[in-house]
Amino acid sequence: MAAVSPRSSLAEAARTRERIVQVAVEEASRIGLESLTIGSLADRLGMSKSGVIGPFGSRENLQNAVLEQAGQIFRAAVIAPLAELSPGPARLTRLIDMWVDYLADCPFPGGCFVTAASMELDGRLGPLRDQLRRVVTSWRAFLTGEIAAAQAETQSVPPRPPEEVATVLIGISMAINQEIQLLNDRSATERGRAAMRGAVGLPPVTERDHALNP
Amino acid sequence: MAAVSPRSSLAEAARTRERIVQVAVEEASRIGLESLTIGSLADRLGMSKSGVIGPFGSRENLQNAVLEQAGQIFRAAVIAPLAELSPGPARLTRLIDMWVDYLADCPFPGGCFVTAASMELDGRLGPLRDQLRRVVTSWRAFLTGEIAAAQAETQSVPPRPPEEVATVLIGISMAINQEIQLLNDRSATERGRAAMRGAVGLPPVTERDHALNP
Repeated sequence: MAAVSPRSSLAEAARTRERIVQVAVEEASRIGLESLTIGSLADRLGMSKSGVIGPFGSRENLQNAVLEQAGQIFRAAVIAPLAELSPGPARLTRLIDMWVDYLADCPFPGGCFVTAASMELDGRLGPLRDQLRRVVTSWRAFLTGEIAAAQAETQSVPPRPPEEVATVLIGISMAINQEIQLLNDRSATERGRAAMRGAVGLPPVTERDHALNP
Repeated sequence: MAAVSPRSSLAEAARTRERIVQVAVEEASRIGLESLTIGSLADRLGMSKSGVIGPFGSRENLQNAVLEQAGQIFRAAVIAPLAELSPGPARLTRLIDMWVDYLADCPFPGGCFVTAASMELDGRLGPLRDQLRRVVTSWRAFLTGEIAAAQAETQSVPPRPPEEVATVLIGISMAINQEIQLLNDRSATERGRAAMRGAVGLPPVTERDHALNP
């Protein structure tokens, strides 16, 4: 075996790429995807500009990788914990809890990455906006399916259309993101959790609260 | 009387200032308040950079004036039409209609100005963020008061706290702003109107719809 095998240099290239994306996600969360500059990333990483851009080929591909990574972080926090439950009210309750926890203790310094990118990019045509539309549309479709599955199992008053309930939940997530990030309002998290539960017809108090206050 | 009185030169200065703010609001709506540059405004206005900055003294004061103007446009569209009604369900219904109309036919090319500014500035400390917090806090307080007044007149099930309902309404406005601006979803407006009416306990169909489909 050679001291530096092709496999280990591939692994190192992957680690470098990952490190660049990680710093770029953090930077873009604070200043916006469009304000991301290769120069400032190079400074922060102690690399040359060509070293930063190399693994991606272009600034645009780097921005795409940043958006992809932000989506993966969201899915790991909010969707992955649902895997062991089948669609229905219990799984929707867990989804709401994970989502609110994600917003309350956000992995991005600037708050919800996709919402911020949406406001930043909605007026700028291009492939980055197209990718963002796919991320947002795919999350909306997933959420609408979860709401419909939960509604199908409950025998309450005729429910509102699942697309409308998805708009309400996504809206509440955006509003509490603003209350947390801009207004530094410590009551936002529990207000948002109660509002989301109310919007899907669950009682406002969570099972977690019952466990804490038996 | 002199041909150019001090009064008419004051009026001209006010008109120039107004014209700069108008173009700057439009530009900031598309690219963000932080990306606003005096050079690009000077180009668009056919003025010198010092001519653009002169009436304000600094770029920061110009940004403040832009935010103030965006707030005035919102208040003229959504709050002014409420003046002839006293607080209560009818006035809250009108508020929701005006708000949804404002989002559907937005006076800013980049969608709701204050929401976009909130996502852009929430991580950047400074006087502009402070001014934005005042704008957002003041709108939240007004809206919460309107919700409380409407709840006090209805004898339905115990209502949710008005602060929570305000979070839901503000959230729905943000979600449909995204659906309109990013997703170009033509069903967003009526879905948002129905969702807002549902959140405050009104039936989903508006009186306006009844008037259109008697």
